[in-house]
Amino acid sequence: MIKTARLQPRDITEATMNDQYQANNIFAKILKGEAPCIKIFEDDYTLAFMDIMPQKEGHALVIPKQAATTIYDLTDQAALACMKTVQKVGKAVEQALNVQGTSIVQHNGNAAGQTVPHFHFHVIPGSLHGLKAHAQVKSELEQIQIIAEKIKKFI
Amino acid sequence: MIKTARLQPRDITEATMNDQYQANNIFAKILKGEAPCIKIFEDDYTLAFMDIMPQKEGHALVIPKQAATTIYDLTDQAALACMKTVQKVGKAVEQALNVQGTSIVQHNGNAAGQTVPHFHFHVIPGSLHGLKAHAQVKSELEQIQIIAEKIKKFI
Repeated sequence: MIKTARLQPRDITEATMNDQYQANNIFAKILKGEAPCIKIFEDDYTLAFMDIMPQKEGHALVIPKQAATTIYDLTDQAALACMKTVQKVGKAVEQALNVQGTSIVQHNGNAAGQTVPHFHFHVIPGSLHGLKAHAQVKSELEQIQIIAEKIKKFI
Repeated sequence: MIKTARLQPRDITEATMNDQYQANNIFAKILKGEAPCIKIFEDDYTLAFMDIMPQKEGHALVIPKQAATTIYDLTDQAALACMKTVQKVGKAVEQALNVQGTSIVQHNGNAAGQTVPHFHFHVIPGSLHGLKAHAQVKSELEQIQIIAEKIKKFI
């Protein structure tokens, strides 16, 4: 059902063929290894890492390796792979932070609040009350790294 | 990859075998035909209908026919089917309401704001600014029906 061949950085580079996808966005750079991230999970089709401007402690992101701007651009393979990774990561976030519940949030288009033009699911632990604004303030990376290590133990 | 056999109401009824799934929730009743909904799309594995307590005009819901409480309970088949239906419905919502962008929101667990214990994706058109509270106020059904008819034309 899902090919097992590992995607290569070229899969992102080739996205320059697609006029709509902006190949130099920060998540594309992370996928190409040109920018750092605090990784918590990776498989052939997805990458999960910590949001460095978290709206809440434990706020994680799941992205496809496919060069897709919005949910409407995802292949079936990437869509399913993202869902499976959200299942893995979300449950681990709940366990690591010892919270009940998670919300999954995903914006398509600037007008809807999408700040990076590469598809991403936000995984946000616990209640949505008292969330910080989206993508506003960087947290201490060391603190995020500690939380990431906790989450990885549950994946 | 996906079976073509249509799911029957028994698929929901059998969920009573699963202690965690509350088989009498309102979305289960809608799937069993025991409660009405303003339907905009249906296929073998999913149903999409209007939220009757919309946070915004055009607010739609996508649910699996699988008896699943949260994202963590979804089978691969249901997960992919929900994503494909969100792609169809979300694009149609944008076109019908003539807005740029959509947000996809999904809560798991009471603590995270889940109000009906059957998995559902919220599809919310345009900006999230100025949203009404979640599941608080019923809108006029006639008005929602008119919007639903517009959306259906784009699916």
